Amino acid sequence: MLGLMQEQPLLISGLIEFAARHHRDAAIVSRRVEGDIHRYTYADAARRARQVARALDRAKLGFSDRVATLAWNGYRHFELYFGITGSGRVIHTINPRLAPEQVAWIANHAEDQVLCFDLTFLPIVKGVWQHCKTVKHWIALCDADKLPADTGVSGLRSYEAWIGDEPGDYEWPQFDERSAAALCYTSGTTGNPKGALYSHRSTLLHAYAAALPDGMGISAREAILPVVPMFHVNAWGIPYSAAMTGAKLVFPGAALDGASVYELMEKEKVTLSAGVPTVWLALLNHMKQHGLKFSTMKSTVIGGSACPPAMIKTFRDDFGVTVLHAWGMTEMSPLGTVCQLKNKQLTLPPDEQLAVLAKQGRAIYGVEMRIVDASGKELPWDGKTSGDLQVKGPWIISGYFKGEGGDPLVDGWFPTGDVGTIDPDGFLQITDRTKDVIKSGGEWISSIDVENIAMAHPAVAMAACIAVPHPKWDERPLLVVVKKPGTNPTREELLGFFEGKVAKWQIPDDVAFVESIPLGATGKMQKIKLREQFKSYVLPSPT
Amino acid sequence: MLGLMQEQPLLISGLIEFAARHHRDAAIVSRRVEGDIHRYTYADAARRARQVARALDRAKLGFSDRVATLAWNGYRHFELYFGITGSGRVIHTINPRLAPEQVAWIANHAEDQVLCFDLTFLPIVKGVWQHCKTVKHWIALCDADKLPADTGVSGLRSYEAWIGDEPGDYEWPQFDERSAAALCYTSGTTGNPKGALYSHRSTLLHAYAAALPDGMGISAREAILPVVPMFHVNAWGIPYSAAMTGAKLVFPGAALDGASVYELMEKEKVTLSAGVPTVWLALLNHMKQHGLKFSTMKSTVIGGSACPPAMIKTFRDDFGVTVLHAWGMTEMSPLGTVCQLKNKQLTLPPDEQLAVLAKQGRAIYGVEMRIVDASGKELPWDGKTSGDLQVKGPWIISGYFKGEGGDPLVDGWFPTGDVGTIDPDGFLQITDRTKDVIKSGGEWISSIDVENIAMAHPAVAMAACIAVPHPKWDERPLLVVVKKPGTNPTREELLGFFEGKVAKWQIPDDVAFVESIPLGATGKMQKIKLREQFKSYVLPSPT
Repeated sequence: MLGLMQEQPLLISGLIEFAARHHRDAAIVSRRVEGDIHRYTYADAARRARQVARALDRAKLGFSDRVATLAWNGYRHFELYFGITGSGRVIHTINPRLAPEQVAWIANHAEDQVLCFDLTFLPIVKGVWQHCKTVKHWIALCDADKLPADTGVSGLRSYEAWIGDEPGDYEWPQFDERSAAALCYTSGTTGNPKGALYSHRSTLLHAYAAALPDGMGISAREAILPVVPMFHVNAWGIPYSAAMTGAKLVFPGAALDGASVYELMEKEKVTLSAGVPTVWLALLNHMKQHGLKFSTMKSTVIGGSACPPAMIKTFRDDFGVTVLHAWGMTEMSPLGTVCQLKNKQLTLPPDEQLAVLAKQGRAIYGVEMRIVDASGKELPWDGKTSGDLQVKGPWIISGYFKGEGGDPLVDGWFPTGDVGTIDPDGFLQITDRTKDVIKSGGEWISSIDVENIAMAHPAVAMAACIAVPHPKWDERPLLVVVKKPGTNPTREELLGFFEGKVAKWQIPDDVAFVESIPLGATGKMQKIKLREQFKSYVLPSPT
Repeated sequence: MLGLMQEQPLLISGLIEFAARHHRDAAIVSRRVEGDIHRYTYADAARRARQVARALDRAKLGFSDRVATLAWNGYRHFELYFGITGSGRVIHTINPRLAPEQVAWIANHAEDQVLCFDLTFLPIVKGVWQHCKTVKHWIALCDADKLPADTGVSGLRSYEAWIGDEPGDYEWPQFDERSAAALCYTSGTTGNPKGALYSHRSTLLHAYAAALPDGMGISAREAILPVVPMFHVNAWGIPYSAAMTGAKLVFPGAALDGASVYELMEKEKVTLSAGVPTVWLALLNHMKQHGLKFSTMKSTVIGGSACPPAMIKTFRDDFGVTVLHAWGMTEMSPLGTVCQLKNKQLTLPPDEQLAVLAKQGRAIYGVEMRIVDASGKELPWDGKTSGDLQVKGPWIISGYFKGEGGDPLVDGWFPTGDVGTIDPDGFLQITDRTKDVIKSGGEWISSIDVENIAMAHPAVAMAACIAVPHPKWDERPLLVVVKKPGTNPTREELLGFFEGKVAKWQIPDDVAFVESIPLGATGKMQKIKLREQFKSYVLPSPT
């Protein structure tokens, strides 16, 4: 027997219409590529999203056709998020930090029909447009009078001219909530990128869970500045959760340096932010150098890669900001866990709380997780035993776009490629990527543990721990370090810093000082490149 | 094209298993009918819910068969919430405050197969069991040795004996998320009660929305004492949202007097509560009389009927507790709106904030609402124009159980029977029930507005404003008042209190002092009975 409840599909169009109706004057503030500050409201955004939908209808795009974006966090990108998906098309957010040939490859693979880009990325477009075979419409996200002449890009139009004449009303279509809504390619460190294809249902359920008090805590009381890019896994779902709740949005555009982000946070009274650790390093350095404090910031979500405990402590003790350490993946929409204390932990001493907050946190409802050994046997949640992390749930992929890579699931679970422990309270701690773990004489050394300790040293700006081949132990850890400006730590000093913090055999064998560590398109350290660079490195003889 | 996300139905069994796994030691504390305090954990609750499921399998109940409860808020009722629904049956929560003949009527109408009851309600059961034709199993929610002898109820068993021998493991079945999960009858002031039949999908979506920071704000950091009964619209969904987030639960059992509730709140460090205004009156009176303060309480959800602004102010100014004024209906699972300030209102002066908080609040995502005039035309959201309130969404009924009452929807919208205004910020204010509004000479007088003013008078313990027939104006308002102990206000004093607060013609024509005002099964004032009582009342001649 079925319940007698209204059958109403969970559709993304509902989010923007709800925001326009219930939070019509809530502000959306954007730093534009042009450098100025643009402000409007959810009611404006909804009207322009409807214009986008009409422009796509006029362009005769079919249901589920892909529309690509190559854009920063800004109001036009926000409108596209809703206009494309709400009208039944699929938004394909392209990461502009990819190499041009990769951009062309995925645009062709996705069979994008329209590509909308910020003028910052005109050089990329100029380089690839002739190779993008399916793209019929190139749209520059700018006013008509800002459109450069002689770009050579055939049929290039400005966004404002493209949508400007469309009426602002639109009847959003109703369809199966499992329909495709958004396409996002994994960065693909090996092989070709693979596409995660989100549905309206998965997006809405994720939006609910991400907004929960134990998720990111999103409400109409917050002003949110997502530093995490909208070209990277839906900016962790913030645009959708914000529309669901009418939160004020502050988009930083291309200016992600510490000074620009800080200025926007203060001017717009931002309360909540989100981004990868490297962005926060830049912000904290800027604030320390200039003796600055936050006026309104309460918390920031940090994910993408593990947040060093020292950074969590600095945010809390020096700046009064709670770090919400989070973990997720492109294949997971992306949110899996967020680190928020439980009731019983609220009275713990600050240092013990910090030990909890350094973990990646607890699953939000909708994500099931487990750790397994090499044979697939489930391992205990004791906070010590580490195993391969697997997940399942309604916003986790069942396969990749076009079936590539076959069925990625194992017994219905998605293997994340992460290695971690789960404690009895359900707090996940990622100890490594399966491929980054250092296998020393049959024992595993967590590269992340080593990096976290190194990052706590006052002279270390950035640190990566990688495996290098070793004749006796198969692999041994090498610490690759970028020094902080004005410091000059020695190898001995850094290695001595590990004493008493880890077992002797987990201390790196050597330190290599470098000018910079390569970062990938999403701000993560590219250890694969480092391993290549140091593959012939000769470690000192064992003592 | 469909997205490539895992297809996983939203099922209630997932909630309790999630809680057992991720919040295994989070506490569930119950004041038992026996008077003592019982404590256990989500892991225990899940194990016993599985035992319930097995007992139902053993009793050969089919999919969607109804299992009734007649019980207070307590751990056994909580287990039944999950064991019954998770195994594919439908929980039918019966309101024990109904007249025995009504209990029998709805048990027969629902075709209940099993009926589980607290021993408090044995007298009801003794009176009705021979009239409940479909009930095969009568289960008393007690230990085997507490089962009274010679009840006369054929085949009566204790709950502990019934589930005690069942193993604690169980494979929860997977099925269509739209399947029926719970049945709740409206109190039915006129005609027979009608059943709202919730689904697993509606329950899960409601659980997400109710837990949002702009909903009730439920997380693993909270300790929640639901005063609102589990026999009344799922205790506003708190059991489900609590399991979703691992919040500590504190169940008050039958002891809902001010002293008992206060004691439990303090002892168990309760942070959040929920209930109807009349319960809070008793609690506040107790606290004032004894000069008590809260140590941990932060907020309480008040709904069921409008919360007098004076109570919201008292909670805030005298006790440091934020009232979350809420509105909903049995037909809405029940949550429609919760009153939480928006970002821009956080800096308003306290009195202006109070004016906002006195409204019923903003829709949580998933509820669409509108106000319409008599012809069905949508009315503006200006905070002044009042109209008939209509709602739609995935946890709002599409019809009543067994199709009774036909199709209740109008153009896809459910007419709530409430009259209200909506302001430009989306805040709903209920001004009356369609049937309670006083129609005086073509103008409408809101009975709730009149009652709110009367309740602010220091000598008024309870007040109801009802229409009495009037030869010239059709109807005129009569104020029915219960005096506070030790006070003796006069008619003139009370009517004078209205001067300057409403227009002259909205001031009641007279005051009738009574010993008590009849309350319905859900704690609401039964104005229908009052109107009957005062139908021949002769108002004083107009001045």
